[in-house]
Amino acid sequence: MRDFVPSGVITVTTDFGHRGPFVGTMKGVMITRFPAARIIDLTHEAYVHWPAEAGFWLERSYQYFPKGTVHLAVVDPGVGTDRSVLVVVGAGHVFLAPDNGLLADVIARTGGIAISVEQPRLVGLGIDRLSATFHGRDLFAPVAAELAQGRVSPWDLGAETEDFIPSLIDPPERRGNELHGVVITTDHFGNLITNISDQELAQFKRPMVRAAGHEVAVYRTYGDVQPGTMIALINSFKVLEIACAEKNAAAMLGLGRGGPVSVVETYGNA
Amino acid sequence: MRDFVPSGVITVTTDFGHRGPFVGTMKGVMITRFPAARIIDLTHEAYVHWPAEAGFWLERSYQYFPKGTVHLAVVDPGVGTDRSVLVVVGAGHVFLAPDNGLLADVIARTGGIAISVEQPRLVGLGIDRLSATFHGRDLFAPVAAELAQGRVSPWDLGAETEDFIPSLIDPPERRGNELHGVVITTDHFGNLITNISDQELAQFKRPMVRAAGHEVAVYRTYGDVQPGTMIALINSFKVLEIACAEKNAAAMLGLGRGGPVSVVETYGNA
Amino acid sequence: MRDFVPSGVITVTTDFGHRGPFVGTMKGVMITRFPAARIIDLTHEAYVHWPAEAGFWLERSYQYFPKGTVHLAVVDPGVGTDRSVLVVVGAGHVFLAPDNGLLADVIARTGGIAISVEQPRLVGLGIDRLSATFHGRDLFAPVAAELAQGRVSPWDLGAETEDFIPSLIDPPERRGNELHGVVITTDHFGNLITNISDQELAQFKRPMVRAAGHEVAVYRTYGDVQPGTMIALINSFKVLEIACAEKNAAAMLGLGRGGPVSVVETYGNA
Repeated sequence: MRDFVPSGVITVTTDFGHRGPFVGTMKGVMITRFPAARIIDLTHEAYVHWPAEAGFWLERSYQYFPKGTVHLAVVDPGVGTDRSVLVVVGAGHVFLAPDNGLLADVIARTGGIAISVEQPRLVGLGIDRLSATFHGRDLFAPVAAELAQGRVSPWDLGAETEDFIPSLIDPPERRGNELHGVVITTDHFGNLITNISDQELAQFKRPMVRAAGHEVAVYRTYGDVQPGTMIALINSFKVLEIACAEKNAAAMLGLGRGGPVSVVETYGNA
Repeated sequence: MRDFVPSGVITVTTDFGHRGPFVGTMKGVMITRFPAARIIDLTHEAYVHWPAEAGFWLERSYQYFPKGTVHLAVVDPGVGTDRSVLVVVGAGHVFLAPDNGLLADVIARTGGIAISVEQPRLVGLGIDRLSATFHGRDLFAPVAAELAQGRVSPWDLGAETEDFIPSLIDPPERRGNELHGVVITTDHFGNLITNISDQELAQFKRPMVRAAGHEVAVYRTYGDVQPGTMIALINSFKVLEIACAEKNAAAMLGLGRGGPVSVVETYGNA
Repeated sequence: MRDFVPSGVITVTTDFGHRGPFVGTMKGVMITRFPAARIIDLTHEAYVHWPAEAGFWLERSYQYFPKGTVHLAVVDPGVGTDRSVLVVVGAGHVFLAPDNGLLADVIARTGGIAISVEQPRLVGLGIDRLSATFHGRDLFAPVAAELAQGRVSPWDLGAETEDFIPSLIDPPERRGNELHGVVITTDHFGNLITNISDQELAQFKRPMVRAAGHEVAVYRTYGDVQPGTMIALINSFKVLEIACAEKNAAAMLGLGRGGPVSVVETYGNA
């Protein structure tokens, strides 16, 4: 668990969007400290002020990056208050984010160790002049740069803790024969991405998906049906997705983030 | 024609937008296989499910990258079905995309050779665990990485073919004294970009452009007229564009992708 | 002032958005000339055709990049006309943009030297086949690449000048007890970012901010108030910002770019 050998790669996930120099100045700070940093954007269009989506994507995406990657995520409505900062070491990767639930699922998934960053430890790194409103640039970016170049180890930054904020989203819940989950997010195509995993769906022999008053059958991929047909499938991140072939399911169902989705067993003839 | 010496550069064109970790995980896969990859985004806001725009931009843009670049394009409504994957070698560049018409204009423009990727060839590269819905990450990204670092040549991936899907868009058509083309896309400013080339426009001595019931005169650049004036011009990618100086022509004309545009000869006094 | 030692880093700021291959081909041109270029996007969603926002962000952001960075900014409604091109050397950085007011605040802030680029100087660099509509790709990108790799110095490009276009935006103005400024831009969260600096606000003992008929109190950070409360603060770029905790202030106030904002002294009991 204590194996973290930095690869020099840093991923960046925020809710900053693309207007203004917010992400750009974070990168400027990182390469000023670590000129060889390899920086990759995961997304900057996470839902604003809602750490759950960013955490969900991190938990499902980190494995596509080299071991030794530092994953930086800033969805931080509590910036400038006394909220803590977490570093998580898990599966050979390091994750860095505000302690607001964002990393809870990453910790669970990786069995990772959480470390609560102690402000005084940052002073020795010259990370001591923080604005009140942009810790992405003034704290997270320089810490990520130092971790990614191996100038500090996660354990240099604070003490291990098991006292961190849990996820804002409850896991799917079984009620009788039904499994109840939620929409975590929609993608650019309007596909609705839920928190119901492939393993949870596999507990149903003949599943039917219910969302916004519709019953949707489960297929393998979009092209299995005619354009315009509503389908459910296990997507490439291994969660249940509701889509409409070549159309926008979110718009057609009027459903979005936080919306309820359930799975039921059907009993027709096979 | 068989000259492809990889430069290490990969461009990425998709219809994925910027929400979620789709483009980011593609890059993670690429640098995991090829840490020195030089990855540049062409655009991720190609019209969704419509390969024509992505193919148009690739055909008009590849020359601005170093020879030896691998151009990866994923607009792929048929993902997970039995649609083929094409590698095209042309003009010293390599292009990789689903066989859905996206690369037809690139092949025509570069006089390139098309190779149909054979699934078994990928297994030896460890590209064998594909999701049903995200071949951008699971197939195209690793293949691009291997091509860009020269671990495989295009001819290692399959056999040459002349049997590929044609472009979805017909070339402009001459009917009497009129040339009829279409709007391929609009840019961020609302400029309407057509498939009528500079050479086709040059066949008119005194051309007038018709679109959405308007007649638009041809100028050299936006600043040649007062703000708010509708103009046509040959743009920097050498196709006819309809613009409105410092305004949004697409919004003003109510015209967009696929909309008809024609060029006619005028016979006033010079 | 004449110290410019290139770091190999180039930042790019445009109003091109993310549709089409505009930014991508600029990068292709840059790495074709300078393969080791380190290119970082500042933003591509500056207000279109309005150089003031891009200039504001550059002036406030350059310091977060390594000394020796070349900052390229293209908001260029006059492209293809006889407008000039400026190179500014200041604070160990170089800035490159059309001469349309974009760099006026950068010059003032850095005490920089402005050089007017002379077209014939570019010919020797092979920068001589310009389209009429996309100098970002055909002129600015190659010049930035040559400056960033030190193949030319700014002084090789033309003569120093003090005759450049001033900023489109007047600085805040004191009228009696009131300070009058404007909204420069809004960010992705809907925060309203003004041109009133921390030093200007500090001239008030008990400031109250007025905007769109509201009186807004000054706090330190978003988390100092309950979600939904309108606040003013000095943001991380050291200018006055009007925000609404976890909400969209721009939408709630109906205010945006160019909107008036004033600061007044209050005289209640302390």
